[in-house]
Amino acid sequence: MCCCCPDQQLTPSSFLRIGQLSNVDLNEDIHELETELPRQHPNEIPHNEKLLSLKYESLDYDNSENQLFLEEERRINHAAFRTVEIKRWVICAMIGILTGLVACFIDIVVENLAGLKYRVVKDNIDKFTAKGGLSFSLLLWATLNASVVMVGSVIVAFIEPVAAGSGIPQIKCYLNGVKIPHVVRLKTLVIKVCGVILSVVGGLAVGKEGPMIHSGSVIAAGISQGRSTSLKRDFKIFEYFRRDTEKRDFVSAGAAAGVSAAFGAPVGGVLFSLEEGASFWNQFLTWRIFFASMISTFTLNSVLSVYHGNAWDLSSPGLINFGRFDSEKMGYTIQEIPIFIFMGVVGGILGALFNALNYWLTMFRIRYIHRPCLQVVEAMLVAAVTATVGFVMIYCSRDCQPIQGSSVAYPLQLFCADGEYNSMATAFFNTPEKSVVNLFHDPPGSYNPMTLGMFTLMYFFLACWTYGLTVSAGVFIPSLLIGAAWGRLFGISLSYLTKGSIWADPGKYALMGAAAQLGGIVRMTLSLTVIMMEATGNVTYGFPIMLVLMTAKIVGDYFVEGLYDMHIQLQSVPFLHWEAPVTSHSLTAREVMSTPVTCLRRIERVGTVVDILSDTSSNHNGFPVVESNADTTQVAGLRGLILRSQLIVLLKHKVFVERANLNLVQRRLKLKDFRDAYPRFPPIQSIHVSQDERDCMIDLSEFMNPSPYTVPQEASLPRVFKLFRALGLRHLVVVDNRNEVVGMVTRKDLARYRLGKEGLEELSLAQT
Amino acid sequence: MCCCCPDQQLTPSSFLRIGQLSNVDLNEDIHELETELPRQHPNEIPHNEKLLSLKYESLDYDNSENQLFLEEERRINHAAFRTVEIKRWVICAMIGILTGLVACFIDIVVENLAGLKYRVVKDNIDKFTAKGGLSFSLLLWATLNASVVMVGSVIVAFIEPVAAGSGIPQIKCYLNGVKIPHVVRLKTLVIKVCGVILSVVGGLAVGKEGPMIHSGSVIAAGISQGRSTSLKRDFKIFEYFRRDTEKRDFVSAGAAAGVSAAFGAPVGGVLFSLEEGASFWNQFLTWRIFFASMISTFTLNSVLSVYHGNAWDLSSPGLINFGRFDSEKMGYTIQEIPIFIFMGVVGGILGALFNALNYWLTMFRIRYIHRPCLQVVEAMLVAAVTATVGFVMIYCSRDCQPIQGSSVAYPLQLFCADGEYNSMATAFFNTPEKSVVNLFHDPPGSYNPMTLGMFTLMYFFLACWTYGLTVSAGVFIPSLLIGAAWGRLFGISLSYLTKGSIWADPGKYALMGAAAQLGGIVRMTLSLTVIMMEATGNVTYGFPIMLVLMTAKIVGDYFVEGLYDMHIQLQSVPFLHWEAPVTSHSLTAREVMSTPVTCLRRIERVGTVVDILSDTSSNHNGFPVVESNADTTQVAGLRGLILRSQLIVLLKHKVFVERANLNLVQRRLKLKDFRDAYPRFPPIQSIHVSQDERDCMIDLSEFMNPSPYTVPQEASLPRVFKLFRALGLRHLVVVDNRNEVVGMVTRKDLARYRLGKEGLEELSLAQT
Repeated sequence: MCCCCPDQQLTPSSFLRIGQLSNVDLNEDIHELETELPRQHPNEIPHNEKLLSLKYESLDYDNSENQLFLEEERRINHAAFRTVEIKRWVICAMIGILTGLVACFIDIVVENLAGLKYRVVKDNIDKFTAKGGLSFSLLLWATLNASVVMVGSVIVAFIEPVAAGSGIPQIKCYLNGVKIPHVVRLKTLVIKVCGVILSVVGGLAVGKEGPMIHSGSVIAAGISQGRSTSLKRDFKIFEYFRRDTEKRDFVSAGAAAGVSAAFGAPVGGVLFSLEEGASFWNQFLTWRIFFASMISTFTLNSVLSVYHGNAWDLSSPGLINFGRFDSEKMGYTIQEIPIFIFMGVVGGILGALFNALNYWLTMFRIRYIHRPCLQVVEAMLVAAVTATVGFVMIYCSRDCQPIQGSSVAYPLQLFCADGEYNSMATAFFNTPEKSVVNLFHDPPGSYNPMTLGMFTLMYFFLACWTYGLTVSAGVFIPSLLIGAAWGRLFGISLSYLTKGSIWADPGKYALMGAAAQLGGIVRMTLSLTVIMMEATGNVTYGFPIMLVLMTAKIVGDYFVEGLYDMHIQLQSVPFLHWEAPVTSHSLTAREVMSTPVTCLRRIERVGTVVDILSDTSSNHNGFPVVESNADTTQVAGLRGLILRSQLIVLLKHKVFVERANLNLVQRRLKLKDFRDAYPRFPPIQSIHVSQDERDCMIDLSEFMNPSPYTVPQEASLPRVFKLFRALGLRHLVVVDNRNEVVGMVTRKDLARYRLGKEGLEELSLAQT
Repeated sequence: MCCCCPDQQLTPSSFLRIGQLSNVDLNEDIHELETELPRQHPNEIPHNEKLLSLKYESLDYDNSENQLFLEEERRINHAAFRTVEIKRWVICAMIGILTGLVACFIDIVVENLAGLKYRVVKDNIDKFTAKGGLSFSLLLWATLNASVVMVGSVIVAFIEPVAAGSGIPQIKCYLNGVKIPHVVRLKTLVIKVCGVILSVVGGLAVGKEGPMIHSGSVIAAGISQGRSTSLKRDFKIFEYFRRDTEKRDFVSAGAAAGVSAAFGAPVGGVLFSLEEGASFWNQFLTWRIFFASMISTFTLNSVLSVYHGNAWDLSSPGLINFGRFDSEKMGYTIQEIPIFIFMGVVGGILGALFNALNYWLTMFRIRYIHRPCLQVVEAMLVAAVTATVGFVMIYCSRDCQPIQGSSVAYPLQLFCADGEYNSMATAFFNTPEKSVVNLFHDPPGSYNPMTLGMFTLMYFFLACWTYGLTVSAGVFIPSLLIGAAWGRLFGISLSYLTKGSIWADPGKYALMGAAAQLGGIVRMTLSLTVIMMEATGNVTYGFPIMLVLMTAKIVGDYFVEGLYDMHIQLQSVPFLHWEAPVTSHSLTAREVMSTPVTCLRRIERVGTVVDILSDTSSNHNGFPVVESNADTTQVAGLRGLILRSQLIVLLKHKVFVERANLNLVQRRLKLKDFRDAYPRFPPIQSIHVSQDERDCMIDLSEFMNPSPYTVPQEASLPRVFKLFRALGLRHLVVVDNRNEVVGMVTRKDLARYRLGKEGLEELSLAQT
């Protein structure tokens, strides 16, 4: 092992790395704490938001172009590449079909179970309205909700915690290149699907759309690998795709298919995937992603059409459809545009408030509610409170509407006159998706302003409390619902003010309010505009929706970050944004890199390799390879880069020769051996190397990547960042003028710098 | 000057570069020919398609991060960066507004002039129908068309030849990183706008949509630079954006705004720009591009609404609107999908035929019709033939339709009974845009199958002949028109076969036919799907349109390339595709690179610099900089990279010191000096350097880019390609293990390799 410290005679400034050294120090301090700490102390992470966790590893989107890989690629001829290409298309089609089917399954099960629940509760209320004792109904409702949610929460908290929430932050991280453990496993998919059904049926203020994105991603990851490690089945197909680069491409397609199935928005799905993930845009990839998206919405549409009895009419492209916005009846005029912009401002402010409240709540949860049983109790509490709030609001509401001509599924009479129903009850006796559509399309006058106001207020706090619970659920629909409610209220007020002008259609304002609120919370840009546009099925709304989303984002960003980014940051994930902070030109690779770097020689002693890999204090994943006969005095230029995973496979297969017989040929490995081990490479501790074997030598030449990307020490941080981000790297070697290794840049070194309120700030690294 | 040839002791294989050497040889052979050759010999480029021209330079999308740049960036604080960001948004808004206005101008002028022409001809025909002598009418019509087209052709051929055609191939090249001379100049815009008006009014089988993309790009390039070199006006604003990287970003926005104005397709515009240009996807950039697109279609829509008298109704989002496709009346069912796929196959075959015919025609034109006057004559000939064909077809047609209830603008009675009009005449007495919409929406029975068949056949050949003429015109609309015609014919036939089933609406089949034909010709993928989807204003057609376009592309690609790619290749442009050819892993940087490389020393003699820059046989644009005291025996690692343009500015400003006073500080330059010279740096011949000055020394340290991207010699071609393409490089230095310069990879070295029918093929380089 040669420790390539920079030669101090040549680089006198190498001692000036102050930020660097303090980082290394911190790093070592942290190592002395146990890693299982968080689960024991109730009050563990005091300044959570200024930390970057070291527990997340990076994905490697750069192919390791070693001899094995090149030999394989050179053997493959043109026709074989065509077969590979066809396989990619087949996989994308399968991703689309399966994602669509999963969405159908969720939709149908939710519809039936929720229908059953509403009928039971409605019958109960109807019974007790006459003879008194409505508190029994409340108890029944709350208990029903809490127990359903309990099951949903238990499976998430105890079986697969990564299935909690919408999964969008996790998929964002995955596509960004961060390895979130378990995120694309089959088990996660099963828990996610069951969890989301139970959350929605449990009456929480959640949607089933966000989780579709996660589900699509898991499906994609599973199919593209042609095997399931959970099920211990290897179908021996698609082996070519068993590496991070290819897998990510398919996961992009899966995420897009998920969006497409959720909102009937295939183009929006593609844009979502590209916005969140693909740093390098490739026409063929995009076209495949689009194919998967289209297949997904088409599958959903066909199956649901058949299920609903009107086969072939293809009227349900997504889990939520905003319904027909007729451009003739509901068109907008230029005068309305300032009003829409004002709604965007309101949405931005309300979104920021939502996020800020949720931030404090999440901090509280991280500190105090980290035991699974506490998490389950909280989820049950929220479910019971949601039912209670709904009940009280229905009880206190005196907003009766004539039942005739309305399309309410479970009309609740309560204290209304015969032939009328309680308008507030429809908002609660409905899945949130249906409520949104009702707010968009119910004719003017269907809602009492007071009802809408109260509903907005209550639902805002409930949704805020619900997001971050240990249940599988999305925030899209609650956001849309809050926005649609206040948007409609806004439209009604406008109508009053303007004495019922024709243009103040409350449905239109509900739509804009929904866009503003959603934009203010999640802060997505182009993809959200297109998703909304496709969900309305009407292209003419594109311009106002864009304006509203843009305003909401600008206003919201002034206060706090978007909800997903906030949660990513709270998890201390080393997430790389699009560009380096604008003011970071003053930093160079020399200041940013980690040093010293552990290097390996081209022909290395097995014992040294084992020791380096077993060193838990460094736990590096990539090692520069230098010339074998290098000693400290001679120039030893960089020869290649080898990964921990590759070394593990080499050790496992005992690919080494005795030192005395160096000219013997060592055992040949095939690329297949590496692929079979992907992605769950065994830990070094599981590999037994005898004392004799430790003295053997291992020749890394044909396994290392002989042309790793490098940067000179003088390169500025934005330059390093651009290279790293554009190529999706995991390791970037910093070399001096003589091509000697002086440092290594990895994800955490770049993610550490952030633009704060007072300029550039540097996050600390922690082992949490 | 030190000539960094590879050290042969260390790299014994450096003599094995056979492909390399032959390339250099060829290169030098070509230099002995005059560069003005093409204009003199009628039969010049015998194997045009296997050549790569050396006359195209590359754009540099990598910032040269020299000291000046870094000092400026470090001086700018956070607030100032925000100002820059706001300026970017303002520029995008201006791009959108101006592009929209230009589109309005074209639309209104075309409508009025074409209307005038049709009235004149119609009156004339009406007059002579009664009294005989219709050949006078034909003469009048042909003469009118030919003279209008003559003017349009003359301005293009004699003033600005780059304004010919749709401009889409040129913009594709620009966004790809190829510098096409004059492509984004103001003069080009003026010629383009006038040219397209005259072509359309001249009755050619062309559209005004394609040129909008070029117009938008020119507008963007002009505004973003805050000055016009043609008008000799410098507004002293937006100086920060005077470099290739920033300019390209704005040009992407301009192209998107152009698409958006042309088709009312803002999302399609964004996708077009991204598909064609942006290799590195950036969320902020995309959002700005989308903003420009939205503003553009909104401006067009508002102005045209006002112009057409129905202010505020916003019903014309694009130059062409496909009209309302009512999903209830014209929805599709699952059974129709195989039919659509079949139409895609037909479209692919017809598109390939179109492209193949146009290929032969273009080869003929390159060989024989290269004098401007010949080009004008050809354009006039086509105009006259188009009129004649139209006339003959109208004359021979006996397809009379009742005038009542139809919305024909210029109904021509000809030999029809009173109260009826000649149906064939409407197809010719209309701008092609209107004909397309008529084919989509006219009720079943409006067209006689015979009429449609003849029309398809004639228009196919006319459009094919027209594309490539020296006039400004696009191929989108003619393609749509051909497709709509045969699609409608197909729909009518289906209707006959199925005895008038309700689902065989001919309008729907016209739409699918249009998509198939256009897809078969231009082979765009995602962007075209979205453009079509937005132009129909109906999201539900997305799936069948995607299927049709995908089939058309697959089938078409089996025969020949897409029209734009074909023309780019015929121009021998070094265009970089998305990925290196799949079978190119056998090539390494060593085989691909150009060598020997002309290097400069860090402190270099002025005379040497002048001599290198004046050397017309090499004409390099980037020079690696090595250590000053390097002699041939010592290791001289790469220190930086300097561009020809930077050296020119240094020489112009006499930034050098006498050799005797090396410790004197040389004149300081500011970044502004480089920006003022951008992009038209003077040639070296225009800079006078006296004999005394030749002996001075020039210190390149603070001007060179100290951290150029490098690759090792062993890197495979796909790896080199990926780095080069993802970062939009112009020069990539190839270094050996000791960081010594051994070669240089530029665009032509990568574009040279292509996947042919029999595997990897290498194009020759030529000076044409």
